[in-house]
Amino acid sequence: MKIERAKGTKDVPPQEEIVKQEILDSLKTVFKLYGFSPLETPILERIETLTAKYTGGSEITKEIFKLSDQGGRNLGLRYDLTVPLARFVAMNPTIKLPFKRYQIGLAFRDGPIKLGRYREFWQCDVDIVGSKSMLADSECVKLTFEFFKSIGLKTFIEINNRKILDGIMESLEIPEKERNNVIIVIDKLKKVPLEDVKKELKQKGLYDKQIKQLLDIFGMEGNNAEKISNLRKIIKSDKGYDGLDELEQIFKYVKNKDLIFKISLARGLDYYTGTVFEAFTQDESVMRSSLAGGGRYDNMIGGLIGNADMPAVGIAFGVDTIIDALKASNKLKAKKTVTKVFVIPIKAEKESIKLADNLRKQGINAEVDIMGRGISKNLDYANSLDIPFVVFIGKKELKAKKFKLRDMISGKESLLSESSLIKRLKE
Amino acid sequence: MKIERAKGTKDVPPQEEIVKQEILDSLKTVFKLYGFSPLETPILERIETLTAKYTGGSEITKEIFKLSDQGGRNLGLRYDLTVPLARFVAMNPTIKLPFKRYQIGLAFRDGPIKLGRYREFWQCDVDIVGSKSMLADSECVKLTFEFFKSIGLKTFIEINNRKILDGIMESLEIPEKERNNVIIVIDKLKKVPLEDVKKELKQKGLYDKQIKQLLDIFGMEGNNAEKISNLRKIIKSDKGYDGLDELEQIFKYVKNKDLIFKISLARGLDYYTGTVFEAFTQDESVMRSSLAGGGRYDNMIGGLIGNADMPAVGIAFGVDTIIDALKASNKLKAKKTVTKVFVIPIKAEKESIKLADNLRKQGINAEVDIMGRGISKNLDYANSLDIPFVVFIGKKELKAKKFKLRDMISGKESLLSESSLIKRLKE
Repeated sequence: MKIERAKGTKDVPPQEEIVKQEILDSLKTVFKLYGFSPLETPILERIETLTAKYTGGSEITKEIFKLSDQGGRNLGLRYDLTVPLARFVAMNPTIKLPFKRYQIGLAFRDGPIKLGRYREFWQCDVDIVGSKSMLADSECVKLTFEFFKSIGLKTFIEINNRKILDGIMESLEIPEKERNNVIIVIDKLKKVPLEDVKKELKQKGLYDKQIKQLLDIFGMEGNNAEKISNLRKIIKSDKGYDGLDELEQIFKYVKNKDLIFKISLARGLDYYTGTVFEAFTQDESVMRSSLAGGGRYDNMIGGLIGNADMPAVGIAFGVDTIIDALKASNKLKAKKTVTKVFVIPIKAEKESIKLADNLRKQGINAEVDIMGRGISKNLDYANSLDIPFVVFIGKKELKAKKFKLRDMISGKESLLSESSLIKRLKE
Repeated sequence: MKIERAKGTKDVPPQEEIVKQEILDSLKTVFKLYGFSPLETPILERIETLTAKYTGGSEITKEIFKLSDQGGRNLGLRYDLTVPLARFVAMNPTIKLPFKRYQIGLAFRDGPIKLGRYREFWQCDVDIVGSKSMLADSECVKLTFEFFKSIGLKTFIEINNRKILDGIMESLEIPEKERNNVIIVIDKLKKVPLEDVKKELKQKGLYDKQIKQLLDIFGMEGNNAEKISNLRKIIKSDKGYDGLDELEQIFKYVKNKDLIFKISLARGLDYYTGTVFEAFTQDESVMRSSLAGGGRYDNMIGGLIGNADMPAVGIAFGVDTIIDALKASNKLKAKKTVTKVFVIPIKAEKESIKLADNLRKQGINAEVDIMGRGISKNLDYANSLDIPFVVFIGKKELKAKKFKLRDMISGKESLLSESSLIKRLKE
């Protein structure tokens, strides 16, 4: 029998998982600072929920892992955490608004396997349900900056508003039914050559003049205020003006030079209705995958409830791309173990166990030999896991009521009483 | 369209999820104190892995959620974290031993829905791979006591050894091929009436005399040492003696009056080979579901690798039953939000946002009105979520460079400078 993983999945061994857990803890800390509480929803959802109108759209629903239960009910594995949130809010009509929740969980997509893309992946989402105010969008943006600052990763955030994109297209007289398709093409501007984008736009039925005007607008130079001011002259649509007003408010609430108005930012998902944003590392050497992304989706939850009005905005962090960016910036300190000290008995098993227990009582992560190995094999083990300290306990030490501590990095040894040992290891 | 969850799944709203996260954090802390590092394996596994020999056995594999990917590969959702651990170790032959890992993750079983039983549930496992020594089993037992102590839940642990059970059955001349079936029946002793167990044992082909002897042994009175001593007279089998020796060693390493030798403890799973244990609350008023359980499974990993020798022992904690036990013991403090303070602007939006930002910089979980509501509606919101503090900012306060803090429990208000406010909220 072949021993393999399922295709498109990965194991995360301790030396990577320890770091991932630290990043997740940092995310949770920032989420809580902004008053987001945790929610958990199941991975299994009814297929009707996952494919409902206003949810992910056809690009995503064709990648759903489908299955059924013993009762023959049609289920799917969730492809994001936003649709389940909408389902939760729809089922809990008396929930207090604004409902500010975070959720960290796995999502699944049965898509093609590319480098760095997995069929099972973590999403870390914060969302605010119930507020139309740009203050809500601004909290998401600020929290994003705060989080990346907390892990020492220099980032910038690109921001746009779907209403501005709509307004531009309306002003260029691009037919309404083509606009969502055009947005999907625009979204590729970063990844595919300009000529290919032009060709695709032409295929969507746009005239050469429209394509030129569109790309001129996307190529517009200037700072955020200048771009907004220029667009106020170009756009001839109420929706477009609304989008510009909303964006201006966010710039008022979030004073940060790394928040950049990117007119071509679209984000592929169907459900966005206003603000959209994406965070990237400032490190030029790193491939520019987005580290976090989100936006406003005012119709999804209301659509699920049935014509109710339920605005929402949120952002999702991709923990894998964040780890990649940290690695590329040499900001990542891999650890092979959580253990701080390894206790090696030299014919003193009972005393070694007792010491390990006492260290643990003091909050020190401690291991003790459970293999009955000799000194050198135990040292090999401690070395191979980069355990920072080792304690030897033998007859000599027991007689002197002291323990020999070896700093595994410097190699320095010291003979210490139990209380001095604890003090030293707690440093 | 009906908005429903998938059958057998549940949402965990903030007021429950906050507590669950705290329990998971306590578990992680204790796991790390004992030198267990985190591992993550995927939820999707190949069906061949999940149904391999030496894994869960037919009782479990018939409950696997089956699905396939776009390439037509047969997959299943994992039903525990032990089989994936075995697969991981089998795929990583150079891993350092002992491999001590913890994993907290979801498992799935498409079983009948009973009260408190879900098709998607959390498992929190620690396992030690590579050590035959009873020191490893003892570490699992000690860690279990430590964890429950840390959350203030009084528990006892029942312990047994499959070799003892085998030895008893050998001595009673119960045929080898029936012994696993007998173990499954024995496992029901807690849950079904004695008469039903007798009937089932008779159906398995046991003579009345054998049944009587078996039940007499299970009903044996006395402390741990007395039971071991009595069994040494009854058992006539080397395997049985080995089991008694192993158990005696654990009692030597773990001196705890709440570790109780329970001769009838079997645990249903096929893969156990030695020590088995289960933890229960001491609270008599609570239904006695096991809060944690595990044991030694020396053949599973080796079986997957192919005839290699790879001993292992571990324990799994059931976070849902732990929460239920805490609730029943009135030890559970539900929280509706993580927010410590809610900032209410009285025509001072800008200043309120700034204060919230400053509080967050000081590590204080803070929310600010993002709905543009009046004072009383904002107070309603803070009240409904039991947010402990509210700060008011209006013209008067701004002029005095002070903030009005209201303790929402006592109702007491104080006018404080920003630094005093921060100091107070940090208390």
